[in-house]
This record gives sequence, structure tokens and C-alpha cells, in this order.
Amino acid sequence: MAIVVQKFGGTSVATPDLVRRAAGRAIRAKQAGNSVAVVVSARGQTTDDLLDLAYEITDRPNPRELDQLVSTGEQISIALVAMAIHAAGHGAISLTGGQVGLVTDAVHTKARIQHVNAQRIHDEFAKGNIVIIAGFQGVDANQNVTTLGRGGSDTTAVALAAALKADVCEIYTDVDGVFTADPRLVPTARKLDEITYEEMLELASLGAGVLHSRAVEFGKKYHIPIHVRSSLTENPGTMIVEEVSRMETITVRGAALVRDLAKVTIRGVPDQPGVAARIFHAIAAANVVVDDIIQNVSRQGAADVSFTVAKDELATAMDTSRQIAQELGAGDVVADDKVSKVSVVGIGMRSHTGVAQRMFKALAEAGVNIQMISTSEIKISCIIDSASADKALRVVHDAFGLGIG
Amino acid sequence: MAIVVQKFGGTSVATPDLVRRAAGRAIRAKQAGNSVAVVVSARGQTTDDLLDLAYEITDRPNPRELDQLVSTGEQISIALVAMAIHAAGHGAISLTGGQVGLVTDAVHTKARIQHVNAQRIHDEFAKGNIVIIAGFQGVDANQNVTTLGRGGSDTTAVALAAALKADVCEIYTDVDGVFTADPRLVPTARKLDEITYEEMLELASLGAGVLHSRAVEFGKKYHIPIHVRSSLTENPGTMIVEEVSRMETITVRGAALVRDLAKVTIRGVPDQPGVAARIFHAIAAANVVVDDIIQNVSRQGAADVSFTVAKDELATAMDTSRQIAQELGAGDVVADDKVSKVSVVGIGMRSHTGVAQRMFKALAEAGVNIQMISTSEIKISCIIDSASADKALRVVHDAFGLGIG
Repeated sequence: MAIVVQKFGGTSVATPDLVRRAAGRAIRAKQAGNSVAVVVSARGQTTDDLLDLAYEITDRPNPRELDQLVSTGEQISIALVAMAIHAAGHGAISLTGGQVGLVTDAVHTKARIQHVNAQRIHDEFAKGNIVIIAGFQGVDANQNVTTLGRGGSDTTAVALAAALKADVCEIYTDVDGVFTADPRLVPTARKLDEITYEEMLELASLGAGVLHSRAVEFGKKYHIPIHVRSSLTENPGTMIVEEVSRMETITVRGAALVRDLAKVTIRGVPDQPGVAARIFHAIAAANVVVDDIIQNVSRQGAADVSFTVAKDELATAMDTSRQIAQELGAGDVVADDKVSKVSVVGIGMRSHTGVAQRMFKALAEAGVNIQMISTSEIKISCIIDSASADKALRVVHDAFGLGIG
Repeated sequence: MAIVVQKFGGTSVATPDLVRRAAGRAIRAKQAGNSVAVVVSARGQTTDDLLDLAYEITDRPNPRELDQLVSTGEQISIALVAMAIHAAGHGAISLTGGQVGLVTDAVHTKARIQHVNAQRIHDEFAKGNIVIIAGFQGVDANQNVTTLGRGGSDTTAVALAAALKADVCEIYTDVDGVFTADPRLVPTARKLDEITYEEMLELASLGAGVLHSRAVEFGKKYHIPIHVRSSLTENPGTMIVEEVSRMETITVRGAALVRDLAKVTIRGVPDQPGVAARIFHAIAAANVVVDDIIQNVSRQGAADVSFTVAKDELATAMDTSRQIAQELGAGDVVADDKVSKVSVVGIGMRSHTGVAQRMFKALAEAGVNIQMISTSEIKISCIIDSASADKALRVVHDAFGLGIG
């Protein structure tokens, strides 16, 4: 008998009909002979509503109490899904993070999973129950409720799949799977049947929002096949796996776009050892997350250092950069708040050459100027002007023959 | 250092301002040198909203899942109250029924408390924390969430007070205390400074809704002084205690009215042993709760048996009565759906005579016909026509000099 973990996001349980639909899907998986565990997020706007309640009381809610509060959102969802399964004549039991023994560290609002009590779920499987588990939440060693932060329910689902040694972890969402590019921007984008964990990790960090990278990391670490698929259809989605069949023949799996970046350039930075460390230590100390960094060739003992940040962190990044520039005796600090990043990702790049050239040529032919370039073993990213962002994504996507037809 | 338990009902935490007000009261009790535990109910309409969600899914929600669902209402309240205390610069921690170790039997939606882990709360007191505890809920031996049924938060508060050996259990409500009669019906009604547990139990079962009888039973059993008082003022309310000072001089403590009763009479019931047992076994088997029973003197080997039920159970009671009347060879079954019950309660009745006579005389002088009479050691109740109910309560209240002036 196979073990299946299904995860339904907040939009997939937002109405009574959708709750019944999710329940029906779990029942069908059970009737097909599987043991079924279902992870559910808070419904629709519930989490936002709960946060509003907190901020009506205080601007800075105590983090432990915030977790105690928002965790009720998933508890409501699991009770409703379990009721819907009961109402359809099947056995089900809902379990909160505490009840299922999902133990985390004590870092409220962004806890990390330490242990999952799989036995509790296996016991319920043995009774014939579908087990409905609250996503996003756990308890610390003292039974304080914790939450896992962004993408938490995906992480819960994959961690449970790992603890249960599940055959598959199905992530139900409102899109059909993982695409070669965002289909809203690239009409020819094609749904992928398979993608590797590493490619998915790169894409997730490059703005492909379909699955949180922490969940993918878990899947990769514990070898859990993850099936990203639509909650609205029966069509197969995208399998995230260790190795994709005929992997060698495909160099680029997908293209992605991150908008709303800003670029900071510190001019005339003295070309001495330790200078970059000082700059980025200061930026990190200001809690600004740096995306890409580029330092060009030194001229007369000084270099220009550029980096990108999320646009809403630009003001802090500029303040910090001006201060450190002064300390270092560097020149001006200039900003560009209209840059975007277009990337291609593919595990086949490891053994293929010419990928970068093909990308640069496509951008050049479309008249898109490349401001910065960064690469990893399986990714090439170019920082470009935001005005050309959509066009850049389309031409890169097409240049690698990713689309339909 | 004294230990104080405070309980706030749903209306006392319904808005952010009220949450802050409840928090302020707990802080003042702490600053006065007490260890403070606060029991909170679900806010305003939260429980009803959660029940609506359940009934949108199914007409008959699974009881375990219903408890899992509705228990989130109190969890939201305790997190908000704890946040408000933190925001005011004091230490607080919220605990669900599960976290505080309030263990019940496994009877979902109407569980009974079996054990409370006082040590967990004492540990938090030792850290200087105000402890905010979810009312109405517990867990069974397998960590399934249970709820205590009607009046559950009052019961939680008094049970915690018992487990903590608290010096007082303060029940905050939207009235000033326990009155000699419902002040909306009897303008001269007076707030009582003290009342005994036994009197409060009788009044609670006779429709004085200020405190649930299960909570009073707990207080009586564990000798917990209960202070029923207003959440809107600083005025002292009513102390519920073992013995009231100068108790002997007061015969009647209060008067109460239950409306919306219905009376069923089975005529010509054979006057044989076991007949009443058969009638009321059948009624109980139909899940109808019988209030008072009267059987008059036998004439020619047959008697009339009357009993009262809640008006909304009349149809079931009639159906069952007609069937059992046929089986017994009794006569007609007739109903009166416009009866009410007026009662006087007082522990002093035990040693005083003439209470019944004074009550009957007051009703007679007011032209109110008495249809049935029932008594206990500390109570006399009369079933009367509903049209005279308000007048009956007033004249009885005044006949015993209970009012102001």
C-alpha cells in the first residue's frame, strides 16, 4: 500500500465547495488503495484577518502570542476538511502541529522543523483514517505553538512525506504545474512534466512562486518525489525528482523573471583586500538581503562595486552604502530602482557550452542591454532595465526552444 | 501572596479596547501583589461564526472535529489578551486547554474536567507571568481537543481556582452581580452582597443566567469563593460563599422566573405501581428533559399526571405521551404551551416556616392562579399562566421584602 501526502493551499479550501472538493480528492486517493495524509493551509484571508486582530491590539505583537494566534487559521481548515470527509462517510481525523508531534526549534514566526512523530500518523492509517494535518505550524519542546514562516505549509507537507517515507508528496495549487516561464508573461510557455530538485531550487529563488525553496530542499534531502499539480483538474502536473529522463539532451529547463529590483553602485572603491567584506558586512548588519554582486575591473587602483536588492530595501541600502563609502574613501553612490533579472536554469548546462552566448545573443538581437551578469553551475542571470523585462523573458525563453511548437 | 483567578466572558473581550481593559484589570491585580490567572472565552460572535462554517460543510459535523474547530475561538482570545499585557510592559503567557494540561473525559462537546496541571501555572507565576488560559476547552487522555459545553468558561475558571487553591475566583460579566430578581423585570430588585452556593445553584437552575450551575457546583465542592462582578466598573459584585453572615435572619434570598415552559397532562392514568416510571422512562428515551412533575390524588382508581418541559420540546413530549397513554389505557393527553415558573430561593427556609403560605397569599392577592407547586429544601416553585408571569415575579419579590427601600 502506497503512502500519499496531499497539500492544499489556502485558496484550495477557501469556500465550503472547495473544502468538499479537497476532501473528495483525499477520499479518491484512499479508495485507490493508498494511505493518505493531507496537509492544509489557513483558508483564504484567514491569516491576514488574524494578523489584523493582533495589530489592532499592538504594533509589535509578542512573537509567541502571534504564533498562538495565527496557528488557529490552519486548525480551522483541518477541522472543516475532516468534517467534510466524515460527512462523505469516510474516516478522518484532524491533527494540529502539537497533536501530530511536529517539533520545531523555539524561533517563533520562522521556526525550523526538528522532528515529526510519524508513529501517530501510522496509527491513524492503521485505523483506516485519512489524517488531516495543520500546515505551517509545530510546537517547540515546551509545547509552545510555533510557525514556520513563508512557504511553511509546503515545508510541512514535504517534511511529513519524508517522515512517513511517502511515495509521493502532491502539492495542489491554482496552476497546472511548473512552467518553462510564467505563462502570464510568455504565451508560448509550456508545462514541464519533470524538473530536478536543483533546477526547481534555482527557479524558486528566481521568482517562480509555485513552491517554496525550503520545501524543495527537504524533498531533495530526503528524496521525496514532489508532484505540483492543479487542484481544479485531474491533469498530471510537474514531478520534481532527482533525475529527469533524457536529461542530457536538455540544457535549459526554464526561464524566470524577478522584477522590482534596485541596483546600488559604489564608485571608486579602493582596490584593497577586505574592502568587499567591509561593504557587505555593513549591508548585512542593516538587515538588507543582497541579491547579486558584481565588481568590475580595477582602474588606477579603484573599482566600481554594484549589487542588487529588493526595491523596498533600497533606501536602507543607500544609507548604509553612503556611510561605508565615506569610511572607505570611495566615490559617489548611485542607485537605479528600475532593474529586473532574467535568468535561465537547467541542469544540462553543466555539460553543455554556449548557453551564455546564446542568451546574450538573444538579448542583444532584441536590443536589451545587459547591466550585470551572474552565474551558477546551472543558471545564468542578467540584470536588465525593467522596461525591457517582459520582452527579455520572451526572447530568452524562445531562444532555447522552451515553448510550445 | 494571594492567588486570583479572573474570568472574562466573550462580551468582555469583544473589541480591542475591551481586550486592553481586561488586560489592565489583570495587571492591576498583579501589581496589587497577587499571582494572577485569567480565563477567557471566545470573543463576541466568534463561536457562532465558527459553528456557521461547520454547518456550511455538513448538517451533522463530527463532534471531535467540531471541538477542534470551535476551540480556536478561545485560542484567539487568549493570544490577544496576552499581547495586550505584553504591550503594556508586563509578562504574560497564553495557554490552551492542552498546554495547561486541563484533562477531560472524551465526551466531545460536553466533556467533564478530570484533572488540571496546576504546576504548569505555578511555574509561570514563579517567572512573574500573568497566565492567560483558554476557557471552555481541554484535552482528553489522547490530546484530542474537547469542549465543556454550556457555561464551560465559568467552569474552567472555578476548576482552575480549585486546582491552584486560589483565594478568589472573579467572574467578570456585563451585570453588577447577582440580584434578588432579574432587574429588567423587577425594578426594585437589589444586588446581593453575598449568596450561598446552594442558593446560587437553585437560582442558576431557575433561569438566573449570570453563572452556570456547574461552575457553582465546583466552587461548593472545593470551597472557592466566587466573586461575580461587572467588567465595566470597579464596584464589588456578589460573593458566592459557604455561609452568608447573619444568614439566619434572611429566609428568602431571591426570586426567579422561567418562561417558555409547556405543561403536558395525561388524564385518567391507572393508579398502579410502576405507571409513573413507565411514563417518564418513555419521555426520557425521547430525549425530552422534564422539569417538574405533579400527580394529583386518585379518583376511582385513576389519576391525572402533569409535567412541564421546555416549550420547544412540547411536540416530542406530546407524541410520546399519547403513545404511552394508549399503552396504559389512560385518557386524553392535553397541553398548555403558555406556562411559566416563579420561584423563591433561600437557605433560611430550612429553619423558617410560613414561606410557602406567604408566597401563595401574595399570588392569590394579585389574582394569579397556581397550577402546580414543587418544592425543595431551599426553594418553592409555582407553575402559573405565562400572562401573569411578570406580575407574579414582582409580587413574590416584594412579599418577601427583597427589594430596595
